[in-house]
Amino acid sequence: MKIVILKFGGTSVGSIERIKNVAKIINAYHKKRYKLIVVSSAMSGVTNDLISKSKQISDNFSSSEYDVLVSTGEQVACSLIAARLIHLGLKSRSWLSWQIPIMTTSLHKNAKINAIYKRKILNYLKKGGIPIVTGFQGVNENERVTTIGRGGSDASAIMLAKFFKAERCVIYTDVEGVYTTDPNKLKKAKKIKVISYEEMLEMASLGAKVMQPVSIQDARLNRIDIEVKSTFTKKSGTLITKRSNIINNKIITGISLTQNDSKISLIGVKDKPGVAASIFKPLSKNLVNVDMVVQNISANGKETDLTFTIKTEDLNKTKKIIQSNKNIKFRKLILKKNVSKISVIGVGMITTPGVTFRMFQTLANKKINIQVISTSEIKISVLIDKRDTKKALIALHKEFKLHNKR
Amino acid sequence: MKIVILKFGGTSVGSIERIKNVAKIINAYHKKRYKLIVVSSAMSGVTNDLISKSKQISDNFSSSEYDVLVSTGEQVACSLIAARLIHLGLKSRSWLSWQIPIMTTSLHKNAKINAIYKRKILNYLKKGGIPIVTGFQGVNENERVTTIGRGGSDASAIMLAKFFKAERCVIYTDVEGVYTTDPNKLKKAKKIKVISYEEMLEMASLGAKVMQPVSIQDARLNRIDIEVKSTFTKKSGTLITKRSNIINNKIITGISLTQNDSKISLIGVKDKPGVAASIFKPLSKNLVNVDMVVQNISANGKETDLTFTIKTEDLNKTKKIIQSNKNIKFRKLILKKNVSKISVIGVGMITTPGVTFRMFQTLANKKINIQVISTSEIKISVLIDKRDTKKALIALHKEFKLHNKR
Repeated sequence: MKIVILKFGGTSVGSIERIKNVAKIINAYHKKRYKLIVVSSAMSGVTNDLISKSKQISDNFSSSEYDVLVSTGEQVACSLIAARLIHLGLKSRSWLSWQIPIMTTSLHKNAKINAIYKRKILNYLKKGGIPIVTGFQGVNENERVTTIGRGGSDASAIMLAKFFKAERCVIYTDVEGVYTTDPNKLKKAKKIKVISYEEMLEMASLGAKVMQPVSIQDARLNRIDIEVKSTFTKKSGTLITKRSNIINNKIITGISLTQNDSKISLIGVKDKPGVAASIFKPLSKNLVNVDMVVQNISANGKETDLTFTIKTEDLNKTKKIIQSNKNIKFRKLILKKNVSKISVIGVGMITTPGVTFRMFQTLANKKINIQVISTSEIKISVLIDKRDTKKALIALHKEFKLHNKR
Repeated sequence: MKIVILKFGGTSVGSIERIKNVAKIINAYHKKRYKLIVVSSAMSGVTNDLISKSKQISDNFSSSEYDVLVSTGEQVACSLIAARLIHLGLKSRSWLSWQIPIMTTSLHKNAKINAIYKRKILNYLKKGGIPIVTGFQGVNENERVTTIGRGGSDASAIMLAKFFKAERCVIYTDVEGVYTTDPNKLKKAKKIKVISYEEMLEMASLGAKVMQPVSIQDARLNRIDIEVKSTFTKKSGTLITKRSNIINNKIITGISLTQNDSKISLIGVKDKPGVAASIFKPLSKNLVNVDMVVQNISANGKETDLTFTIKTEDLNKTKKIIQSNKNIKFRKLILKKNVSKISVIGVGMITTPGVTFRMFQTLANKKINIQVISTSEIKISVLIDKRDTKKALIALHKEFKLHNKR
């Protein structure tokens, strides 16, 4: 049985009219004789309203009751979608997590799906039914309602695709797909037709607007093709798939940006094992997210300079942690706000030499100073002055021919 | 284990502030060392909002999905109550129907509870927990969510009281209890402290504002004491109990009214078996609710006059049914709008002769003409002109000393 998972996000089911539209989309797939499993988020705004109620009840609202509370949002959306399909003459019904069941770990508000029982849903599919499954939730071994953390309903869709060995998982959302860079920052940004999981993961903020990294990673591990598209247009979206499915790679697939970063340099740190750990352990404990880390080669073999970036909002906290921790020894501390990380991402760079050089040359031509460099197999990131971000983005987007139709 | 059921209606949990108040009420019972099972309705307005959504999706909304949809209302209320109790330092949790489970018949939108599994709740009570149970719903043998029809959450509370052999079932609502007559129609109406199930059932509209007859009947059959009281005051309410628990009965407990009635008289009907049936069968089929029925003694043994009352809104329909049905033979049809039924109810009349006479004399003194009389063991109803209703109500309320403190 070839199964397709269709997942609809909160804005896609954000009103009665939109739910009717979603029913039309489902009907169109049904007419193409796909076996469908539909997953829905809560209607947009509903979850926030429920969370607001919870905050008024208690500033320390029970996490198990929180899950009971917010899980009603998806239940409402699923019943409305199913009823609309029935109205259109199709066989459909809502399937609540406990009815399937979708089993999760026990941790409330942040559970993980660890099993989906297939028997009832498969029977229902065989009878020609279209199951509408509540996203974002499950039940734990104590038969209590859980909600899953990051990734939400996307994670539900990916796990359904995994357990039912679905041919494809279509994520309907309010954006048309993944772009070469943020269209709000560069009008010439183009929608990417096909992208590998790895590139998508490296896209960081750019990709995260479309899908949480945790869900992309789950899809990658289970080799599930994901199609991201908009409920509001009929245009094709972006296919996220394994590298080997992608022919005619561009060298660079996209350019991502981070802003509001700060750079911290520790000058004259002892160059011996365990030093980096002694610095980053207290930061991690205090939930400071460290991004780029660069350690220079020690000239004299005794001392080294360590540079890393954090979000500017964490700057004061970080400063205090470093200065108050006596295990961290250094000669000088340099803090710099208003830096920006710009990254070019593409699996094409693995087989194409000279990408790093082209990137650096492009920035040099624009007289943009590179403060820190960090590279991975499919990504090159540089830290630059925040003022230069736009100039750098335009130049790199052009250099790597991302303006062109893809 | 002595168990008390506390049921809160929609207005009682109609806002966050009210839910906090409900938590205080529960806490007060808890401090008195009662073992509590709490049942809640949805926050007022929520169910109507969900129903409105369903109507926008389809004018023939699937009844099974309707139940999935509206049952979320109680789930939200229960999670908020439980979380508030946890906030106050108590052990509490929501119990959804499928978690207990509360089993119902399979008919959606109008299911009946036929079993409540006790094991999990009893274990939870033994551990000192306060279970907050979703009213108005259950699951059927197909593991689908059902909602129960008339009586709603009251019926849930009564059935919980039955299965757990509760000592008492307290119905918290937005009225202070049952009154001798409608306080909106007569300011001197007094709250009744104790009333029997049978009187409560005979109170019809008067009682129905407080509780659906079907729930009272269930309570009567299972000998469950019901206390009806308001969440908004600390005043005692009305206890509904078996007759033998009531000492010092007043002769008359209350006076109920119906308005917008019409009277239909069929003059010269053949006086033979099956005639009444031939008239009422087509009315019943057409959902016309017949209230008082009086058949006069036949003078000549061949013909009789038949009079009955219906709601005025059904008058035209009834007229057509009678005139178009050739099985119904009569000489003359008399229709009269603007009649009103006034009933005095009280178990005291069983042992006190002369109540009928006192009622008729009181009305005669006020020159009020009685058009139809109908009596039961504990109720005397008369049909009068609608214009005389208020006058009759005042006179009877005074005659039977209902003005006095009870």
